[in-house]
Amino acid sequence: MSTNEPVPADQPAPLHDTQRRTFASDNYSGVHPDILAALAAANGGHQSAYGADEYTRAFGDVVEHHFGGGAVGFPVFNGTGANVTALQALLPRWGAVICAEGAHINVDENGAPERVGGMKLLPVPTPDGKLTPELIEREAWGFGFEHRAQPAAVSLTQSTELGTLYTVDELTAIVDHAHAKGLKVHMDGARLSNAAAALDLPLRAFTRDVGVDIVSWGGTKNGMMLGEAVVVTDPGATEIIDSLKYLRKMNMQLGSKMRFISAQLTALYGTDLWLRSARHANAMAARLRAGVDALEGVEATQPTHVNAVFAKLDPAAAAAARQEYLFYDWDEKTGEVRWMCSFDTTEEDVDAFLAAIQRAVG
Amino acid sequence: MSTNEPVPADQPAPLHDTQRRTFASDNYSGVHPDILAALAAANGGHQSAYGADEYTRAFGDVVEHHFGGGAVGFPVFNGTGANVTALQALLPRWGAVICAEGAHINVDENGAPERVGGMKLLPVPTPDGKLTPELIEREAWGFGFEHRAQPAAVSLTQSTELGTLYTVDELTAIVDHAHAKGLKVHMDGARLSNAAAALDLPLRAFTRDVGVDIVSWGGTKNGMMLGEAVVVTDPGATEIIDSLKYLRKMNMQLGSKMRFISAQLTALYGTDLWLRSARHANAMAARLRAGVDALEGVEATQPTHVNAVFAKLDPAAAAAARQEYLFYDWDEKTGEVRWMCSFDTTEEDVDAFLAAIQRAVG
Amino acid sequence: MSTNEPVPADQPAPLHDTQRRTFASDNYSGVHPDILAALAAANGGHQSAYGADEYTRAFGDVVEHHFGGGAVGFPVFNGTGANVTALQALLPRWGAVICAEGAHINVDENGAPERVGGMKLLPVPTPDGKLTPELIEREAWGFGFEHRAQPAAVSLTQSTELGTLYTVDELTAIVDHAHAKGLKVHMDGARLSNAAAALDLPLRAFTRDVGVDIVSWGGTKNGMMLGEAVVVTDPGATEIIDSLKYLRKMNMQLGSKMRFISAQLTALYGTDLWLRSARHANAMAARLRAGVDALEGVEATQPTHVNAVFAKLDPAAAAAARQEYLFYDWDEKTGEVRWMCSFDTTEEDVDAFLAAIQRAVG
Amino acid sequence: MSTNEPVPADQPAPLHDTQRRTFASDNYSGVHPDILAALAAANGGHQSAYGADEYTRAFGDVVEHHFGGGAVGFPVFNGTGANVTALQALLPRWGAVICAEGAHINVDENGAPERVGGMKLLPVPTPDGKLTPELIEREAWGFGFEHRAQPAAVSLTQSTELGTLYTVDELTAIVDHAHAKGLKVHMDGARLSNAAAALDLPLRAFTRDVGVDIVSWGGTKNGMMLGEAVVVTDPGATEIIDSLKYLRKMNMQLGSKMRFISAQLTALYGTDLWLRSARHANAMAARLRAGVDALEGVEATQPTHVNAVFAKLDPAAAAAARQEYLFYDWDEKTGEVRWMCSFDTTEEDVDAFLAAIQRAVG
Repeated sequence: MSTNEPVPADQPAPLHDTQRRTFASDNYSGVHPDILAALAAANGGHQSAYGADEYTRAFGDVVEHHFGGGAVGFPVFNGTGANVTALQALLPRWGAVICAEGAHINVDENGAPERVGGMKLLPVPTPDGKLTPELIEREAWGFGFEHRAQPAAVSLTQSTELGTLYTVDELTAIVDHAHAKGLKVHMDGARLSNAAAALDLPLRAFTRDVGVDIVSWGGTKNGMMLGEAVVVTDPGATEIIDSLKYLRKMNMQLGSKMRFISAQLTALYGTDLWLRSARHANAMAARLRAGVDALEGVEATQPTHVNAVFAKLDPAAAAAARQEYLFYDWDEKTGEVRWMCSFDTTEEDVDAFLAAIQRAVG
Repeated sequence: MSTNEPVPADQPAPLHDTQRRTFASDNYSGVHPDILAALAAANGGHQSAYGADEYTRAFGDVVEHHFGGGAVGFPVFNGTGANVTALQALLPRWGAVICAEGAHINVDENGAPERVGGMKLLPVPTPDGKLTPELIEREAWGFGFEHRAQPAAVSLTQSTELGTLYTVDELTAIVDHAHAKGLKVHMDGARLSNAAAALDLPLRAFTRDVGVDIVSWGGTKNGMMLGEAVVVTDPGATEIIDSLKYLRKMNMQLGSKMRFISAQLTALYGTDLWLRSARHANAMAARLRAGVDALEGVEATQPTHVNAVFAKLDPAAAAAARQEYLFYDWDEKTGEVRWMCSFDTTEEDVDAFLAAIQRAVG
Repeated sequence: MSTNEPVPADQPAPLHDTQRRTFASDNYSGVHPDILAALAAANGGHQSAYGADEYTRAFGDVVEHHFGGGAVGFPVFNGTGANVTALQALLPRWGAVICAEGAHINVDENGAPERVGGMKLLPVPTPDGKLTPELIEREAWGFGFEHRAQPAAVSLTQSTELGTLYTVDELTAIVDHAHAKGLKVHMDGARLSNAAAALDLPLRAFTRDVGVDIVSWGGTKNGMMLGEAVVVTDPGATEIIDSLKYLRKMNMQLGSKMRFISAQLTALYGTDLWLRSARHANAMAARLRAGVDALEGVEATQPTHVNAVFAKLDPAAAAAARQEYLFYDWDEKTGEVRWMCSFDTTEEDVDAFLAAIQRAVG
Repeated sequence: MSTNEPVPADQPAPLHDTQRRTFASDNYSGVHPDILAALAAANGGHQSAYGADEYTRAFGDVVEHHFGGGAVGFPVFNGTGANVTALQALLPRWGAVICAEGAHINVDENGAPERVGGMKLLPVPTPDGKLTPELIEREAWGFGFEHRAQPAAVSLTQSTELGTLYTVDELTAIVDHAHAKGLKVHMDGARLSNAAAALDLPLRAFTRDVGVDIVSWGGTKNGMMLGEAVVVTDPGATEIIDSLKYLRKMNMQLGSKMRFISAQLTALYGTDLWLRSARHANAMAARLRAGVDALEGVEATQPTHVNAVFAKLDPAAAAAARQEYLFYDWDEKTGEVRWMCSFDTTEEDVDAFLAAIQRAVG
């Protein structure tokens, strides 16, 4: 028996409808074929566990390719794990993190930052999911006053939970402001690829080059099976870098057969797959947005910078459309919904979905 | 582009020596081909994230098949995640866990049970990795005395970190004793398959049927890429069952594309693959043990019940053997080493390794 | 040598100006003489530590006197300790607490609720420090959705951090709404005495009788040296009651010579001292408020229900007044300040302070 | 009304038997009269809260007097609070603490070090409560291996929980060994006074001068009402010193009317009261020990260095003696008991207790 053989001919039958598409989330889609192929290639033989393998070594080069010499990446299982581990690395035990009220760390992680990470979040309301120096300033105070959880980091999401984007200038202004205040900057990059594709910039242009200290570098939402990486962009941040191997382990984010996470990350980011997939998802959202703008009875509520369209429509119409394509309410009170495109969304999917919406609102 | 296509012909080249074998750990091996095939089959189309997918549903049936009607399983990423989540589900906030001093939760998880789980461990020295009612009794006291972290659970490892096995009678005695004391019982089953193969018993015979309350059901060490499951065996334990979805999420162990963990678990445990693989690994260890017993200059230090051989040999000899095959020191002070077999260890591997040892000690 | 003697004649000289008064906080004042006398009376002889003493027993009767039969109180060191311990007792590990944005637990405890208590706070902006059913509703959602920290309790402060008061009707509406949603209700009563005095109601009328589940019952701010108590008002809440002895201990809030905390609580609440002191402090604030209302250049910003006056005045004027009497800025950006009265504030103090303000704004 | 008046003539009647003595614990005794007097002297007027008061300033001088120039002390409520806060200040988030198995932090704090402090303890069995370089070595390994909670500190208790003492030479050997390994050293000094009295040495001789990094400096067990202090002995340890104000606050150990804790500490340690009281308690234990040694049927089990006598006697005899004087079983299984003397134990108490023991064993 060899584990390095190709997948056997008698592949088991799927349990699911492999043609079904939704606009629910970019984690409803599966795995890009190149990723699956990379998993197969990484198989067979014995490799040292917990990251001392060839695939993790190769991923190290990929990290430096994208984020510059000396940048270091730590593969983890998921986005929450990446965020909490990254933020812990920036914070003293008494630290707090300024973030947008709608940030994933604040609303979608069941308090893992607080419970596992032992940190306090200082959320700021923001209409478009984006922080600014002025918004950060609302919580960047009380330094040295021990009654206040000490602001020690800012967490940005790029692209944001509302599908919006920070420009390089905006990021520069935020990071400079944060650093001047003694705050480190974390970027939740679950959709960093989509941001790069939309900005038409290399990843480092809006991370390391603007001074972001640490990045949660997403993989799952761009066609991987699972896996993200915590990336420290500043090679001089040795204390942060040294802390991460321990934090990852104690946060239960250290995979034993890490080669299979690293191989995915390398297949995605060591080729142009990440960019092709992200561009494609963004283009599908743009197509959807154009169609929506042409419809009566539906109103887009956010700019469509990346792979999400936010819109308001009548709840009855939303229910009707949902009979055909699954998607999520964003805010039940206002009737706002979210439509996500993925690496595998096709033009036909978009057009059929638009037709379904049209029927629903018509 | 369809994601449901077979792996492309131009599969990337491996970065590693796919023929290399070690005796370091069963997580040095890769993924069984059937598991890879199952991943491919689960791919394509859109499936609801976070466990509301067909593969997780199917895994639910597999759980009941092995652990009986009403048993419930929660897929997680890794063993530490399974252990901490399972134990939290059994404990009040002031709870403590009685375990063997050498238990994985005590020595190999960088304090995740304490730091993430907020629990205290009460370790008991044990020469063979096995607890007994008498050993448990050493820490099962102080009930109601608030100065003492309250003993609330016992954690057993089956098979143990020393490659030993609890018999059904031993487990029955322990669980009965624990329950009589008001203690819940957790089983760390990272190698539960190997135990079942060695005992020649169905999984439930030494879990649910003896009263074990919760199981960390391992997958990674038996040929999966990654993935374990927390299994509650008692359908009446509704409070524990209800808690797990929240605990898993807040412990950062909830995968978004969960279908790919569940599909692996189902491929392993929904067929006889788990048993074949475990039997094979155990048989390879038995072959290795027999060879070791025939050698001078090497002394086995533990019974070889499952897929591990523990032995003492001269450090210089160990170093020489390690030039050919990687393996770990178990206790540097005593010169004890550990040799693990895996689902993909072959008879040739064992024989070649024995020859290497013989050269080293000769 | 006997420890039960009266304080010796050669009492050491104070290091501080015993005549100095401020309007900074009700914890700037010292200890009421009756409290000191109670400490002396509790001295001498040996008493069981950690609460098994006569004074803690007597305090149990005081708790029932105020909160009704079966109510149980747990003395702790300070308000943060009371709040975190009380909230933990109400919450599952995945629980969240809805509170006012300006609540002490959210802004003045350096994240202890999150870091020590492992909880998430869901703060709601509120102009007067008071929650309402509508405001609670803004965060009371997502039940059963494991991505969201599960709302499990509401925390109210009575009187609030802004010196405002909930009426019995308002509390009834809030508690009924909360309970209907499955939320428990905690009351931070650091200034519960002041609230009772202002409402002219017994303590139970706006705690137990309206259904509040647990109270942080303050002592320090009403003339004690230190000490608060966590009070469970519902005798049927046995699980909560049973948890508290363990939570208090593990939260490092269990005093060994507890008799000296209990004796203070009993001296305060076992007589009418609590009410006299609170009425006095409230009356002094009312006198100050009346004076402020008569002044030009100072504008009160909140109703003066209890012992605090909030006002806006020119920063230069505030600085001038502060040369004579210490007080705190409440919001540096708006120029709002807070003036607190205490059990030992005199009419002369208030009048002299008003004169100082008048000079400053004049 | 003035709060600076002497205690009123109509002092309330005690609720307890002020003549009762026990040999249960040094926290069964009350407060030394000089401490009560100091509390009265510190009363009256307004003082800044949270440590910005004259008494805390004066305590700062006392700290330097005992521990040398630049040493810094942070008053806290109790011993558990001191220990957890002190240890957190020494540890990275992934740190572990080597301690004696019977250390208070390991057995008497309901897991506060783990649950609140987020640390792992690495306990070592020791017959007399004392660590040695060899015993420390048993757990001082695995540096850099992220699976192991990283040993980062050693915690010693002086005098130990078994009433034994470290000599200066022993401490020097331990600290030097620990520092050479990169481990910081904490001393749990709940009974530091008794140790100094027994060693006939100034406090700094066996703390700062031997290189101990941080001390939990006890007050409660030597005649204070409550209060301990975390002391950093090395003025150059600025990172540790700076961390403590935040750690103390978030650990809920920051008292608002701190003057009353600091005034007690100053009354105790700013005079020779600490030494007189400790010498007295030690002398009473020596007297008890001498009496015990002369009795048949009772066998002392540990050297009597300070204020505790450990002994074995027949359980029935122990029960009989306990009818007259309360004391604790130390180990129910072996019949070992602990007899503690306090600052207020008299020669008559000891002699009467010896007579009671004699009757019981006779």
